[in-house]
Amino acid sequence: MILNYNHTEKILTEFLKNEIFRTGIKKAVIGLSGGIDSAVSAYLTARAIGSKNLTCLLMPYKTSSRESVSDAMKVVRNLKVRHKLIEITKTVNSFSGIIGDSNISKIRLGNIMARIRMILLYDESAKINALVIGTGNKTEILLGYSTLFGDAACAINPIGDLYKTQIFGLARHLGIPESIINKKPSADLWTGQTDEGDFGFTYEKADNYLFNKIDERKSDAELKKLGFDEKFMKKINSMVIRNQFKRLPPLIAKISNRTVNVDFRYNRDWNT
Amino acid sequence: MILNYNHTEKILTEFLKNEIFRTGIKKAVIGLSGGIDSAVSAYLTARAIGSKNLTCLLMPYKTSSRESVSDAMKVVRNLKVRHKLIEITKTVNSFSGIIGDSNISKIRLGNIMARIRMILLYDESAKINALVIGTGNKTEILLGYSTLFGDAACAINPIGDLYKTQIFGLARHLGIPESIINKKPSADLWTGQTDEGDFGFTYEKADNYLFNKIDERKSDAELKKLGFDEKFMKKINSMVIRNQFKRLPPLIAKISNRTVNVDFRYNRDWNT
Repeated sequence: MILNYNHTEKILTEFLKNEIFRTGIKKAVIGLSGGIDSAVSAYLTARAIGSKNLTCLLMPYKTSSRESVSDAMKVVRNLKVRHKLIEITKTVNSFSGIIGDSNISKIRLGNIMARIRMILLYDESAKINALVIGTGNKTEILLGYSTLFGDAACAINPIGDLYKTQIFGLARHLGIPESIINKKPSADLWTGQTDEGDFGFTYEKADNYLFNKIDERKSDAELKKLGFDEKFMKKINSMVIRNQFKRLPPLIAKISNRTVNVDFRYNRDWNT
Repeated sequence: MILNYNHTEKILTEFLKNEIFRTGIKKAVIGLSGGIDSAVSAYLTARAIGSKNLTCLLMPYKTSSRESVSDAMKVVRNLKVRHKLIEITKTVNSFSGIIGDSNISKIRLGNIMARIRMILLYDESAKINALVIGTGNKTEILLGYSTLFGDAACAINPIGDLYKTQIFGLARHLGIPESIINKKPSADLWTGQTDEGDFGFTYEKADNYLFNKIDERKSDAELKKLGFDEKFMKKINSMVIRNQFKRLPPLIAKISNRTVNVDFRYNRDWNT
């Protein structure tokens, strides 16, 4: 799992440069949460296409921690990028109002917040002709720990193949402020939320397991020898499998000779 | 392009039954616009899983035509399904307010509306444990005439392999009210909008071309023999190619042995 972070930075900035410019677009938009993932995405993007071409959106909710905004502002200042601060509390309330349900669970409310932020990012991207850059890491994508069409929504994602523990390493290499690196990872959708609290296991353990199972293709017997117990393995496997739909486009019923995403399949840079 | 609509109905209702029930979910949610596509999706879904398991959301904006709601209500009454009417105008205004841009184009506003409706559909689906059923047809998916993470967002789509002209045939077969079949197709995002007005060509011509090019794999020379001129062909080809990103999940930079959607690829019903 150990990466050469010099090489990683080089690969990811070249990836961003190529994939953004080949679309004919020169700018990018990123939602900065104050957390480590979006900070790493922003640093990589600013280095790839230049600070003047990156816009960062800070979109706090009333329960967002104060450090979320101040840490995001550190990224903005360090990178010298354009930013917008948009409070989403009123818009969240507007949804609660029209849904007319006095008992919206915090998970439903969290999904609404994540999707409101998607709307704002995509609206900004349409306004200034930019691409929305993703901020989801490999652990969260595999475990399905994200909101579909919310924080999972983006055009291209430079960090989606890096486990959370690798994100920490890359963040240190990139010189991201310590306060961002040192705080407990959290989706910050409600007060006191932490990722590891939601999971019931640590990122270190999850990443170690996922890396051995998925990247190294170790068998269940081998994974047990490495010290993982059956209950933990079942829990993680079930999260990875149950959330496969979040990693795929919608399923279309086949009727014709050629069906989109069944036998009509091209890359996004298809250009015949 | 002519379909046997008896067979088509049978294939699509079996598809819906299988794909909904295999997830362990028994219910479905559909956004009814008052147009023909969502009506066809609703009729198929009600027949597949039973009217009592389908909830329809009607989500008009202040500029939505009156017929949109009254036509959607015809579907609700005919199918005897549960429905909710949610006015989205205030929520759209809330976005305009926080975006703080006095000059939001009607296309940006239309995307905001489509995405607000997605949020409401997914919130309802989370509340009642249901799947969101898609309402996009093959013409619109190929031409990219939809809002990504908006009306394009769904779990499964029963009509995504039917061209718009085939949707009309299936709608007649299903007994959908004439007022829905006879009006001009429109995204109804602003007053007077029609799909064919936005395109600058008719569905009949587009479908005929797309069917011959994509399903029948006819060459450019053959397509010209069929009477399509170069300018039209170029316009359609460019729409299909330019919008390929809307049909795919986000692109992830490859760093590891196994990258999501590059060499970590499973179907959504993967269950090892």
